[in-house]
Amino acid sequence: MPDKFKFVENGSITTPAGFSAAGITCGLKKSGNPDMALIVSDVPAAFSGAFTICKFAAAPVQLCKERVLKQDKIRAVIINSGNANACTGKQGYEDAVKMCGLTAAGLSISPDEVMVSSTGRIGVHMPMNIISAGIDKAAKALDPDGGITAAKAIMTTDTVPKYAAVSVELSGGVVSIGGITKGAGMIDPNITVPHATMLAYVTTDADIDNKLLAEFLGKGAEYSFNRINIDGDMSTNDSLIIMANGVSGVKVTPGSEDAEIFYQALQQLLQELAKKMVRDGEGVTKFVTVNVSGAASAADARMCAEAVCNSLLCKTAWFGCDPNWGRVIAAIGYSGADFKPENVKLDYDDMPVVRDGQDAGTPEAVLAQLLPKGEFTVSIDLGAGNYDYQMWTNDVSYEYVKINAEYHT
Amino acid sequence: MPDKFKFVENGSITTPAGFSAAGITCGLKKSGNPDMALIVSDVPAAFSGAFTICKFAAAPVQLCKERVLKQDKIRAVIINSGNANACTGKQGYEDAVKMCGLTAAGLSISPDEVMVSSTGRIGVHMPMNIISAGIDKAAKALDPDGGITAAKAIMTTDTVPKYAAVSVELSGGVVSIGGITKGAGMIDPNITVPHATMLAYVTTDADIDNKLLAEFLGKGAEYSFNRINIDGDMSTNDSLIIMANGVSGVKVTPGSEDAEIFYQALQQLLQELAKKMVRDGEGVTKFVTVNVSGAASAADARMCAEAVCNSLLCKTAWFGCDPNWGRVIAAIGYSGADFKPENVKLDYDDMPVVRDGQDAGTPEAVLAQLLPKGEFTVSIDLGAGNYDYQMWTNDVSYEYVKINAEYHT
Repeated sequence: MPDKFKFVENGSITTPAGFSAAGITCGLKKSGNPDMALIVSDVPAAFSGAFTICKFAAAPVQLCKERVLKQDKIRAVIINSGNANACTGKQGYEDAVKMCGLTAAGLSISPDEVMVSSTGRIGVHMPMNIISAGIDKAAKALDPDGGITAAKAIMTTDTVPKYAAVSVELSGGVVSIGGITKGAGMIDPNITVPHATMLAYVTTDADIDNKLLAEFLGKGAEYSFNRINIDGDMSTNDSLIIMANGVSGVKVTPGSEDAEIFYQALQQLLQELAKKMVRDGEGVTKFVTVNVSGAASAADARMCAEAVCNSLLCKTAWFGCDPNWGRVIAAIGYSGADFKPENVKLDYDDMPVVRDGQDAGTPEAVLAQLLPKGEFTVSIDLGAGNYDYQMWTNDVSYEYVKINAEYHT
Repeated sequence: MPDKFKFVENGSITTPAGFSAAGITCGLKKSGNPDMALIVSDVPAAFSGAFTICKFAAAPVQLCKERVLKQDKIRAVIINSGNANACTGKQGYEDAVKMCGLTAAGLSISPDEVMVSSTGRIGVHMPMNIISAGIDKAAKALDPDGGITAAKAIMTTDTVPKYAAVSVELSGGVVSIGGITKGAGMIDPNITVPHATMLAYVTTDADIDNKLLAEFLGKGAEYSFNRINIDGDMSTNDSLIIMANGVSGVKVTPGSEDAEIFYQALQQLLQELAKKMVRDGEGVTKFVTVNVSGAASAADARMCAEAVCNSLLCKTAWFGCDPNWGRVIAAIGYSGADFKPENVKLDYDDMPVVRDGQDAGTPEAVLAQLLPKGEFTVSIDLGAGNYDYQMWTNDVSYEYVKINAEYHT
């Protein structure tokens, strides 16, 4: 199946046919860096979305959740950075509605056909005059090759724009899936306000209905964005939106082999975007894959992986290139997963570190060569069953603390 | 009731009558700093203990848990730093047994009357020749005023020894309760190995049985050590041990008013020791009390407090003296606690920050004066019920990352 799809060089949300995008500066960021993006499908597109479960979900998230339930097709997504429109009450919700209305007016479509995302400072009302002028500008800047420009406009402390696309060979022809994302655990030094939001947008020219999109998006997010950990915090604004405009004329039918191929390609794309976020996390110097196997249950496998990925002691040890495995073992031990200590195996890449719950005897000098590589795998076999779980995470560095402490409101 | 007990200046585990202690250098730490402590009761003492729930519990923890179940009274606790005796298999357990045996021999008591704690590097067998000579030395150094010396000997990256004692006026006379502790989230720069262990020892000359001690210790730990958060990691070796030798001749009977007074004094003592740990955490510049009220359930109140105290974004914002409340709101929002956002109130000390789920209007310049004070309270009213929860935590600084990254195995 992997040969049925391949990554497209410099691919993004405008790689699929029938999509255009823009990234512009509307003036929310004091730095003058781009702070507004617009994604538009030439024709009404099937869609779905996955959003933060934070109880203080921002106004645009509330509106998008309603759209997903009520609306059949959409045409556009308008995105701003610099203001989260969160904890802004009724006015915040009205502002989100207005953003959709202004976008619809600029594109001569219905306001119901527009989704909206915001990221930035919490608790401040949207400066709607700036937003209004920005939306006009974005609508005029739409470009069928504008995907990467849009990826740049949603960046905050991201050091590189994050985008990818795959082309997928289905029985009815070739379709494309493209995506852009901005990283989690982020703070924007340009606008000097902290925020920590994951935004991701995916487009495809395949013909696929809302129900199947929702199923694929939920499962795909579970195997990608839900399996990365940067600082363990979740934002009021996290949003993942997918649009399928069918412009390729290639239909993806539920239950078909094509559907499975399409899903696998989507999952790979989402994983690629998620990994790009981990690599570009604030102050990151290490990219760590954590593989848990031999767990007694799916929940145990996940708890174990999450405990290791959330451990500040593990993350600072990795930053310090310290191969000491005591902190990993301690995190496994308090994870809540069920196992017998004497059955646990731990490996760093292909080097045995713990066997029978004790030091495996690999010399520290050998282990110490691993971490400076900057990318390695921590494999944990609990020896208690057949469930596994994989996560991607990174280290915590001086730079992380600096970024998150120094940029004040 | 508070006037029934008072803190004793420079009090510690040797403030209660009939206890002696020692802190010596046995040579486990390369620095030559003290690394072994011994606590001894003149007469057999009732006792109890609370230990890490980490599945990789260290050998001494395994042994202590057995002692608590099987043994009626104990005489001594031997403690070493520099080696955790964790992930050391059968030999590790035998070494812990030997440490008790050597201590018993030095004191002419039964090996069953000795408890043992270790903290330090994981996965390395104990150097028993060094331990053996150290125990001899410690037994000879016992001093009825040795409590603070013992507190110094269990320090790792702690910058100050942590000790406290209270005297309690009961109907039958005055008793004392004393304690020493070493901090969580710690690394020993002297022996250049990372470990993260909370150790605490409490003594009293009250006459109180094992069952009541166990009840008081469990409840007291719940309201003290279980309510602090430094880096969210739990160690393989965390131990809290209490001894009651009855030398005062004052009996504490279950269900009596004396029992309630004694418990309140014990809780205050444990809280004082726990707060000292938070204040002396690695690289700490802020001491933060988090009060959650108005929760729909006890679990909700706790989840909410823990989410805020565990948030790396909140902790780095506090370090940076950033009064931005968005990160606190985000943590409350993803905590899993049930509430309506529009009912949530947030205060920093006595300043309203959020009302009706929105900015309360206190100028940022006013809020910004609060954090540099170094000590403040974050009060969260969920407006959803009558349950509350209190925790104490601190910030995450450059120094924290430095300490936890730079000291290698």
